Amino acid sequence: ELKNAIDILKNASESFNKTIDQAEERISELEDRLFENTQSEETKEKRIKNNEACLQDLENSLKRANLRVIGLKEEVEKEIGVESLFKGIITENFPNLEKDINIQVQEGYRTPSRFNPKKTTSRHLIIKLPKVKDKERILKAAREKKQITYNGAPIHLAADFSVETLQARREWHDIFKVLKEKKKKNFYPRIVYLVKISFKHEGEIKTFPDKQKLRDFINTRPVLQEMLKGVLQSERKGH
Amino acid sequence: ELKNAIDILKNASESFNKTIDQAEERISELEDRLFENTQSEETKEKRIKNNEACLQDLENSLKRANLRVIGLKEEVEKEIGVESLFKGIITENFPNLEKDINIQVQEGYRTPSRFNPKKTTSRHLIIKLPKVKDKERILKAAREKKQITYNGAPIHLAADFSVETLQARREWHDIFKVLKEKKKKNFYPRIVYLVKISFKHEGEIKTFPDKQKLRDFINTRPVLQEMLKGVLQSERKGH
Amino acid sequence: ELKNAIDILKNASESFNKTIDQAEERISELEDRLFENTQSEETKEKRIKNNEACLQDLENSLKRANLRVIGLKEEVEKEIGVESLFKGIITENFPNLEKDINIQVQEGYRTPSRFNPKKTTSRHLIIKLPKVKDKERILKAAREKKQITYNGAPIHLAADFSVETLQARREWHDIFKVLKEKKKKNFYPRIVYLVKISFKHEGEIKTFPDKQKLRDFINTRPVLQEMLKGVLQSERKGH
Repeated sequence: ELKNAIDILKNASESFNKTIDQAEERISELEDRLFENTQSEETKEKRIKNNEACLQDLENSLKRANLRVIGLKEEVEKEIGVESLFKGIITENFPNLEKDINIQVQEGYRTPSRFNPKKTTSRHLIIKLPKVKDKERILKAAREKKQITYNGAPIHLAADFSVETLQARREWHDIFKVLKEKKKKNFYPRIVYLVKISFKHEGEIKTFPDKQKLRDFINTRPVLQEMLKGVLQSERKGH
Repeated sequence: ELKNAIDILKNASESFNKTIDQAEERISELEDRLFENTQSEETKEKRIKNNEACLQDLENSLKRANLRVIGLKEEVEKEIGVESLFKGIITENFPNLEKDINIQVQEGYRTPSRFNPKKTTSRHLIIKLPKVKDKERILKAAREKKQITYNGAPIHLAADFSVETLQARREWHDIFKVLKEKKKKNFYPRIVYLVKISFKHEGEIKTFPDKQKLRDFINTRPVLQEMLKGVLQSERKGH
Repeated sequence: ELKNAIDILKNASESFNKTIDQAEERISELEDRLFENTQSEETKEKRIKNNEACLQDLENSLKRANLRVIGLKEEVEKEIGVESLFKGIITENFPNLEKDINIQVQEGYRTPSRFNPKKTTSRHLIIKLPKVKDKERILKAAREKKQITYNGAPIHLAADFSVETLQARREWHDIFKVLKEKKKKNFYPRIVYLVKISFKHEGEIKTFPDKQKLRDFINTRPVLQEMLKGVLQSERKGH
């Protein structure tokens, strides 16, 4: 009787061996397939990232001839038309540009309301010009002039970028301000290649794609570190 | 002898325990990795969807200054050039716009043949104008005029959108027609934000992004339900 | 005592059975989920591919009015402005086009340095014209003229495409050259639909989207095979 029981157990043991072998094979197969999937996942990740970057480039390229008018009362362009409004801004602020600038605008529209969902301020007016050069001239003249107005009320003129690029540029805002304030030090800060900060330091022009790179750089420059402590640290806390 | 057999079985049993423990660990590891994969899959899904939406926006934005001319004989623009053809259409149909509209076209081309693969009809001619305003004026004048012609033959003028947007707009076609027919009820139906239907109902303007939302709304409005029964139901069957 | 040992083994055996059943269920579950993942992976793959193609189309469409000026000294456009430079090229090479071509350029910029990272040659100058027709006229005139110059120095004029399209077109370069050389055979090779090669063969126009399709075709045409042997084989080795 005991022998019989042992035989049954022996058979069961052999059967276990087979079952486990099969299970292990299935597990190995799964591991291989998951590994392949992960590989192809990484490729996809790269392609999606590349598509996102291409989209950014295309959007910014489409906005290169755009002028962003900030602080203009809503609906003001409805009454006189975008072209007359644009002509008005040029005449009022840059009379010496009036002859050179092509006054024909390709398109004028208000930014989508997502920019100010609470609508406490007016939406920006985007004016698409026929020439990129004209936009650049106007923005240069605007930087040199202290105050831009329309019918006497203050407005701002700015370049137009994709939402993501705008966001990336805004991240430099505080640092830019500090570097600009220190006029005697001559940092001449600039935003270059759409989203990088660039400034003069000990006679050399330094460019930084992100805040971490800037932090690494100033780590060994106590003067800069002291100067930017407030704006770079507050950022770190923010995250 | 029996004792020996039992010892072998005991060893086998211990070995099974180890093997199964290892297998279970590998399974747990696989489950964890698959869970992570699925998470990162959902993120990717969102990013792809976002890219698709961005592409739509960019394409529609690129087509904003385009005029779509439908029903024009193939090759007709080859003989006289797109600009003369465009000037001809304006002169023949909208003589009062002639002075105001910029007749210089940026580009003229026939739509790719995928729009009518069987080529029983002529492909659409796309005319890219320098000003979005000009396109809007022409389309407004075309809506007010009963019949548009070129050299006496009837043609249609339409806005230009991406294939996907065009498809989404076409889905409202039957419902739009029914709402427009009931002139005494004053629905004033419109397509807004490219792909949404909007109409007046009991003094309020209602906007619906898709048919399901419209179905939910008319569920408790028997008059509307009766009126749109045919067009909303036939759609449901279609799916 | 032996009976006791056998009972323990029996229990262990039952416990094994349960554990293995559970493990097998978990494996089946993993297999199902991995299968679903793979399915959704293939859908994602298609959507990413579709996005990439859309991006290509948009980018090429944005570049349709661009003229690529190759071989122009760096900085030359800074001194006199892009418009004067463009006017200079037209006057010097195509005096009969001067009256017809719109000399107002929308934008002028040098290609990003990634095109020639070693900077041994000057970067291309991209001139964005207001009309696609003007670009086409200039390129047609340039093909007919043997030598294009600016201030007497040789330059090249070319169409502008996305990097990927440019790459795909370049792959036909050697084959195109061989087909063009055999003037007596009248192949009239052309690049059509941006990236396909097309030529006349025994009275018919043949179009090939890639080299493999061309290889398949010439396999049964010994004359063509002999003619293109060098350029199609060297390609195969390259891979």
